[in-house]
Amino acid sequence: MKTNGTIATADRLMAEDEGQHAAAGRARGRVMLAHGGGGQLTDELLQTIVLPRIGNAELCRMLDSAILDVREAGRVALTIDGYVVQPWQFPGGDIGRIAMCGTINDLAVCGAEPVGIALGLIVTEGFPMGDLAAVLDSIHAIASEAGVNVLTGDTKVVGCGQGDGVYVTTAGVGICRGPALTVENVQPDDVLIVTGAVGDHGLAVMLAREMPEVQSVVRSDVAPLNHMLRKLMVDVPGVVWMRDPTRSGLAGVTADLAAQSGWHVALDEERIPVNVATRHAAEMLGLDPLEVANEGKAVIVVRPEAEERALALLRDEPYGRAAVTIGRVTAPRDGVCELHTAIGGRRILQKPYGEQLPRIC
Amino acid sequence: MKTNGTIATADRLMAEDEGQHAAAGRARGRVMLAHGGGGQLTDELLQTIVLPRIGNAELCRMLDSAILDVREAGRVALTIDGYVVQPWQFPGGDIGRIAMCGTINDLAVCGAEPVGIALGLIVTEGFPMGDLAAVLDSIHAIASEAGVNVLTGDTKVVGCGQGDGVYVTTAGVGICRGPALTVENVQPDDVLIVTGAVGDHGLAVMLAREMPEVQSVVRSDVAPLNHMLRKLMVDVPGVVWMRDPTRSGLAGVTADLAAQSGWHVALDEERIPVNVATRHAAEMLGLDPLEVANEGKAVIVVRPEAEERALALLRDEPYGRAAVTIGRVTAPRDGVCELHTAIGGRRILQKPYGEQLPRIC
Repeated sequence: MKTNGTIATADRLMAEDEGQHAAAGRARGRVMLAHGGGGQLTDELLQTIVLPRIGNAELCRMLDSAILDVREAGRVALTIDGYVVQPWQFPGGDIGRIAMCGTINDLAVCGAEPVGIALGLIVTEGFPMGDLAAVLDSIHAIASEAGVNVLTGDTKVVGCGQGDGVYVTTAGVGICRGPALTVENVQPDDVLIVTGAVGDHGLAVMLAREMPEVQSVVRSDVAPLNHMLRKLMVDVPGVVWMRDPTRSGLAGVTADLAAQSGWHVALDEERIPVNVATRHAAEMLGLDPLEVANEGKAVIVVRPEAEERALALLRDEPYGRAAVTIGRVTAPRDGVCELHTAIGGRRILQKPYGEQLPRIC
Repeated sequence: MKTNGTIATADRLMAEDEGQHAAAGRARGRVMLAHGGGGQLTDELLQTIVLPRIGNAELCRMLDSAILDVREAGRVALTIDGYVVQPWQFPGGDIGRIAMCGTINDLAVCGAEPVGIALGLIVTEGFPMGDLAAVLDSIHAIASEAGVNVLTGDTKVVGCGQGDGVYVTTAGVGICRGPALTVENVQPDDVLIVTGAVGDHGLAVMLAREMPEVQSVVRSDVAPLNHMLRKLMVDVPGVVWMRDPTRSGLAGVTADLAAQSGWHVALDEERIPVNVATRHAAEMLGLDPLEVANEGKAVIVVRPEAEERALALLRDEPYGRAAVTIGRVTAPRDGVCELHTAIGGRRILQKPYGEQLPRIC
C-alpha cells in the first residue's frame, strides 16, 4: 500500500519481514512480540480475540481513556491489583476470573458499587492464542455476572523468559453511595462474620501447582461478591467494616482489624468454617488454612443488633450460604487478635510474616 | 510471638525459615518473593521503601480502594497502561517516569484532568531494592510536578526467569470538565499541530538497549503534559481532538485520525520536527522516526481560527516550545493520511504493521 516514498526502504523491508514472522505466529496460534507493538497487528488482536469476547460500547470506542458518568455520585473508589497466579488455570477458576473478582471485591468491601474495570495484560511471547481467548472468556463471564464491564485496556508482550504466560492487572472504579466503611467505626461488642469456609483458593492453586498428580476436590472459591454485599449494605443497617481475606488470609485481615482499630479481636477457632478436604490439604502441605488466600469471601463487622439479619440475608445468597459468626470485638484496647483454639488454648493471630504461598493470586 | 497454639508448628517453622531467607534478602538489598506475599514483609516493604517516597494521605490509609471526591464533576475518565520498557533506565527517564507520564497524558489528551493514579508493580525476585527505590523516586517526582498522587497500589513478586526487573501498570482517573473531545468533531480545514520534535523516546531507548557503547545525545522526551493541555483547553476555544503519539508514533496517530474521522489528512513532511541526532539514529537503525514512540508529545487538532492562539500558548510552555503546524484535514472523505515528502513525492502514512520496537514503553 505504500506509495513512492523516500524514507520507506528499510522500514518497509522490516515491516515485510515482521509480516512473515507474524503470519507464522498466527499460523501457530501463539502470541508474538509484534502483537504488543501498538500497530496493525495489535489492532488485529483486539478485533479478533479481545473485542469479540469482552467488547461493549465504551471499550469499542478504543480511546485512550474511557469516560464514566458519575453524576449521581459524590465520591468514587479506585483500586488496582496485579495477578500472577501460577498455574493460570486451576480448579474453580483461572487468572481472568480471579483478576475480575479480586478487583470487584476490593471495591465492594469498601462499600463502593463497581462501575468499570481497566484491564492491563502482560503476555509472554508464545502464549497460546487459545489460552488468551479462554482468559478473556472468563473475564467476560464475570463481567456479565457482576454487571461490571471492562471499559479500557492495554496489552504488552514480553519475550520468552521475561514473563510467565500471562499477567493481568485490573484497576476498578466504583461509586460510593452509602456511608464510608472505616475501621474507626469499629467498637467493642461488634460481631465478626465470615461469609463462608476459608482457605479454599490458596490450597486449590497450591495443589494444582505442587501436586498436579493428586486428585483433589478442593476448588477455588473465586467469585464476585458485589451483588451480595450491596444488598447487605442497603438492607441491613449496622454494617461497620468489610474486607476480603485474600493474600495472608483470614489471619491477616483480622490481625489488621485489631491493629488498625486498636481494639481486641477474639476469634473462636471452632466456629471458623474450613472444608474437610481443604483442612486435609493444608495438613499435607504444612499450611494454616487461616493464613491462606480466599477470593470469594468477605469478613464483615456488624453491630450486635444487626448480626441475625446480616446472617439471614447472607445465607440466602449463593456466595453466602455458609456465613457464620466467628468472633467479636472486645475491650481491652490492646490491638491484638486472639484465637481461642478448639482444645481450649489461645494463640495470638498474626499477619503471616512473608511468602507462605508464592504466586497464589 | 506465637503463644500456645495447636496449628502453629509447621507454619511457624516455615515462617522462621522464610524469616531467615528474607533477612538474607534484606542484607543483600534485593527484592525477595516473600516481599510480595501480602504479609508482614510486604508491610515492611511498603513502610520502608514505598510510602516514604510516594506516600500521601489517601495512599497511607492503605485501604483496598482509594476514595476520590468528584462532586464537582459529572464524568470521570479511566485509563490503564502497562509498562515493560527495557532497559528500565534510559537517557531522559526510567520506567517510573514513563508509567506516570503515559497515564497522565492518556487522560489529558481525552480532555480530562488527572486526579489520581493506581500503581501496580510486578517485580522480579532479586531486583535490587535500590533500583526499586529509584523507580519510586521517579514516580514521586512526576506526581509532584503533575500534581497527581498515587492513591492506591499493589505489589507482586515473581520468580527469576518469570519477569524482567520491574513491570509497572498505572491506571488513572481524571475529571472531565469541558466538552468531550471526539473524533466526530473533526472536519475539513482543521489544523494538525504537534507539540515538538518526534521520535526521541523510542530511539533513546533503542540506542540504550542495542548500542550501549554509542555515546548519543538522543534523550527520551518523557514528560507530563497535563498542565499545558489543560491551559490550552481552557484558554483556546476551538480545540477539537488530541492524542499522544506513543507506540506506533506520529504515523499511527495520524493514520488513526484519518481512518476514524473518515476525512483525508495531509501532512507536510518538511514541517514535522525531528531532532538531528534522532534522525541520524533512526537512519543508523533503519527506523522511520514518524513510526517511533513519543512520551511527551501531543498531536492536537484545532479549528483554523484557533491555530495561531494555540501555537502561541504552546510555545510559551516548557513542553511545547517547538510546537508547529504539520498538516491539515481536507476533503475528500477517503480516510487516508498522506505525507507530502520533502522532495515533492507523496506516500500514504499507515499505522505500522507490527512490532517495530519491542518493549519501548
